[in-house]
Amino acid sequence: MTQKLPNFLNGQWQTGSGTGTPLFDPVLGTELVQVDATGLDLPAGFAFAREQGGAALRALTYRQRAAMLSAAVKVLQANRDAYYDIATANSGTIKNDTAVDVDGGIFTLGTYAKLGESLGDRHFMLDGEAARLGKDPLFQSQHVLTPTRGVALFINAFNFPSWGLWEKAAPALLSGVPVIIKPATATAWLTQRMVQDVVDAGIFPVGALSVICGSSAGLMDAIETFDVVSFTGSAETAAVIRSHPSVVQKSVRVNIEADSVNSALLLPDTAAGSESFDLLAKEVAREMTVKSGQKCTAIRRIFVPEALYTAVAQAISARLAKTTVGNPRNESVRMGALVNRAQLVSVQEGLVYLKQQTEILHDGATHSLVDADAAVACCVGPTLLGTRSAQGSDDADRVHDTEVFGPVATLVPYRDLAHALTLIRRGQGSLVTSLYGSDPATLASAALELADSHGRVHVISPDVAVLHTGHGNVMPQSLHGGPGRAGGGEELGGLRALNFYHRRSAVQASTSVLSALSESTN
Amino acid sequence: MTQKLPNFLNGQWQTGSGTGTPLFDPVLGTELVQVDATGLDLPAGFAFAREQGGAALRALTYRQRAAMLSAAVKVLQANRDAYYDIATANSGTIKNDTAVDVDGGIFTLGTYAKLGESLGDRHFMLDGEAARLGKDPLFQSQHVLTPTRGVALFINAFNFPSWGLWEKAAPALLSGVPVIIKPATATAWLTQRMVQDVVDAGIFPVGALSVICGSSAGLMDAIETFDVVSFTGSAETAAVIRSHPSVVQKSVRVNIEADSVNSALLLPDTAAGSESFDLLAKEVAREMTVKSGQKCTAIRRIFVPEALYTAVAQAISARLAKTTVGNPRNESVRMGALVNRAQLVSVQEGLVYLKQQTEILHDGATHSLVDADAAVACCVGPTLLGTRSAQGSDDADRVHDTEVFGPVATLVPYRDLAHALTLIRRGQGSLVTSLYGSDPATLASAALELADSHGRVHVISPDVAVLHTGHGNVMPQSLHGGPGRAGGGEELGGLRALNFYHRRSAVQASTSVLSALSESTN
Repeated sequence: MTQKLPNFLNGQWQTGSGTGTPLFDPVLGTELVQVDATGLDLPAGFAFAREQGGAALRALTYRQRAAMLSAAVKVLQANRDAYYDIATANSGTIKNDTAVDVDGGIFTLGTYAKLGESLGDRHFMLDGEAARLGKDPLFQSQHVLTPTRGVALFINAFNFPSWGLWEKAAPALLSGVPVIIKPATATAWLTQRMVQDVVDAGIFPVGALSVICGSSAGLMDAIETFDVVSFTGSAETAAVIRSHPSVVQKSVRVNIEADSVNSALLLPDTAAGSESFDLLAKEVAREMTVKSGQKCTAIRRIFVPEALYTAVAQAISARLAKTTVGNPRNESVRMGALVNRAQLVSVQEGLVYLKQQTEILHDGATHSLVDADAAVACCVGPTLLGTRSAQGSDDADRVHDTEVFGPVATLVPYRDLAHALTLIRRGQGSLVTSLYGSDPATLASAALELADSHGRVHVISPDVAVLHTGHGNVMPQSLHGGPGRAGGGEELGGLRALNFYHRRSAVQASTSVLSALSESTN
Repeated sequence: MTQKLPNFLNGQWQTGSGTGTPLFDPVLGTELVQVDATGLDLPAGFAFAREQGGAALRALTYRQRAAMLSAAVKVLQANRDAYYDIATANSGTIKNDTAVDVDGGIFTLGTYAKLGESLGDRHFMLDGEAARLGKDPLFQSQHVLTPTRGVALFINAFNFPSWGLWEKAAPALLSGVPVIIKPATATAWLTQRMVQDVVDAGIFPVGALSVICGSSAGLMDAIETFDVVSFTGSAETAAVIRSHPSVVQKSVRVNIEADSVNSALLLPDTAAGSESFDLLAKEVAREMTVKSGQKCTAIRRIFVPEALYTAVAQAISARLAKTTVGNPRNESVRMGALVNRAQLVSVQEGLVYLKQQTEILHDGATHSLVDADAAVACCVGPTLLGTRSAQGSDDADRVHDTEVFGPVATLVPYRDLAHALTLIRRGQGSLVTSLYGSDPATLASAALELADSHGRVHVISPDVAVLHTGHGNVMPQSLHGGPGRAGGGEELGGLRALNFYHRRSAVQASTSVLSALSESTN
């Protein structure tokens, strides 16, 4: 039997008392470790985090908490090799893909350490300037942001066990709010190991960082009024969380980041073979294959002028054809596995569903696996589908509704820009869209047209061909989240991320009281 | 039979096809008008608002929309007398209380007209500065706020048919988002009349402002992904809205402002008869009786040092004893009616419930009615209860849980400041707390301690005795809303109110694209 990973709750390492759920290597099929949260006293653990962890964190200033984030970065960097090994084994990712998760997580944590330092030795933030409440300037209103006195529960997705932890934990801990992380079971090992390293290093006050691996049963029942919940995952689970009595009856703040049908748009009047054309083909092929397409930000729909449909199909397909798929331990492999059997089946079923309304432009089934047994390994080649014509793009409703969470995207030809925008909006809100063109005014105008339905608009023009940060890469400086289908949440965006963990309040008082308040380091 | 008020939807005045629900005079018991939303095609009406009203509003700039708000202010001011007549008849309020609703609403609308002008001739807002995404400054991230392409549905409470409309509609319309207002049936007349005056004046594009009076059945079913819903009312209805499939499945943004058990705190070391002592007694008596205590911001719990319990009880009771109750048409009357029979019964039941854990310090039953028939009029005198001792304050859990929505408050003695703060927090999140004291540092410190559990902290020190804007008065400059029990919403707060109607998006692009975007007046 493999090792059962201990949970950290109530200031103690606790092993579940149940049968345990095994985690597997998606390439070799071997069992790695087990998770088990059976028998944990969740209400007591949450109360401990709230009272001990929260009070200890709030007693520190932003600068002191930022220093802790920096210290955590050092611990994680020292153990980086172990994380890469776990990721290879448990996520089946090649090194470059592991880097997106492991190094991306550490980078984000480091970014918040730097941002936090700029907040200084204070315990709350001023929000804007004081405003007069009448003609006499003696009585004014000053908004303040103070940390919520609850826990931050994170229920995370399997695709980013490291980044998903730290992009949420960094702003929470910096805000003075204790974190309880419940990673997705399939890849919980990496999250658990990172938390263990940081906890064992004694960086944060006890109760500031807890980890629960296994079933999520009972977690939402332990939530109280001033707690916050952040969830990344499916729309179905998001609906369960949103309608949970703790949320519905206690006004608990919830942030949801759900899957979405992201898009890439090659602007009209772009010639085949132009720089913008090539940049689109390159980015789409990269987005489809990074982490085997298991990114919530990955491009799923590629909008191109109808006249360029065939040329774009060929350009992307040519790149996909070069993608070697298989065992991430083989250095020639460019794309590893899907996370597990269930995801493999889900992708296969999704392909069947989409193919009924599309044609195959590049067939993933033509890729043979390198160093991997097709009967065991959860690997699939990248597949590009297409809707054939502008009319087909209107008719193929599944393309706009369905996210196949793997190396799958669909080429969607459009008649004119208005048609393209209408089709993109059929995604009903996405995390990100990317635009490809060379005229700044046209790009700016299209970006504004799509801003209300996207959390991020990534504009790739030839001048930033080598500088841009990638359609699917989430940078801590920019908002992550999107409306509607994408869940309606907001994460990151620099210091904006701290808002979720703070409460805004208007203090109306005489200027002498407001002066005392502004100068307060309480 | 009285007149059936027409609804304005789909760009037309439409009278419901059902039996109609009568509205009454709560003092005289006479029927005034009827409301009826039966047979309205809600999906078509919402689609019309979304497509016609939304597109027309978004085609205008902030400055142009601000000018429309100014024009609406003029129309409302011209019809002010009619609104006072309707309020007297339908809400049973004295003139000073009507002013809080009618003039407060017009003032808030005017404030947003001024704020909007400062936004200039633009169609979107920049959110913060651009941030570098790497060492090379050519590729950056600029956050923008663009109006959501949906409708704003307001489901409002009976106590502020005017202010409740305009404090929400002003920021929505200024943002470029069409409004559909569903007033509470009991007092829908004033809302309907104000909308009618503004619609008939042809100020806003058709579809920008709609009103539906009567049942709320079907309203939430008509909600789509990019719509927003703002609700003011009970926690029970709030839970129904939050768990509605449109919200749970479509990530629809919802703002809730629910009832809360607000507090006033006389700080320790305040002598009986001191200025702070008197300011507390005066404000509590005022808060209890304005609009017969039917304000979601009204003081429900008064925290005082145990040694001052009797003195404060006497000071407040002396003021309450002078409150003449009855027909608002009689100029000697200082407090009018509750809104209807149902509220009268609710207040009476609430009093019975609270009295089981408290003593009566001033009995509302001792007030005889002026110019009103006690068998008909929905009038009650103000009642002050008390928990007797600091121990009693701990034991009387109902006092901290129960909002009696009428002229009722409870005096709660505390041992020391820490005890007071703990007791106040038993309200589980409130709209507002007010602090009474004279030392700026102590007041600032207490304000920060309570900021995380209150949307607003109102500090009354002797220097602002005549300048402060009142515990329960909601100023457009300051946030309105509170965490937890208070619903977790955020309204007003100056331009912050516009955030709810805008979507935040990060545009990542080359500086040339971002320059074109910043200069865009699109």
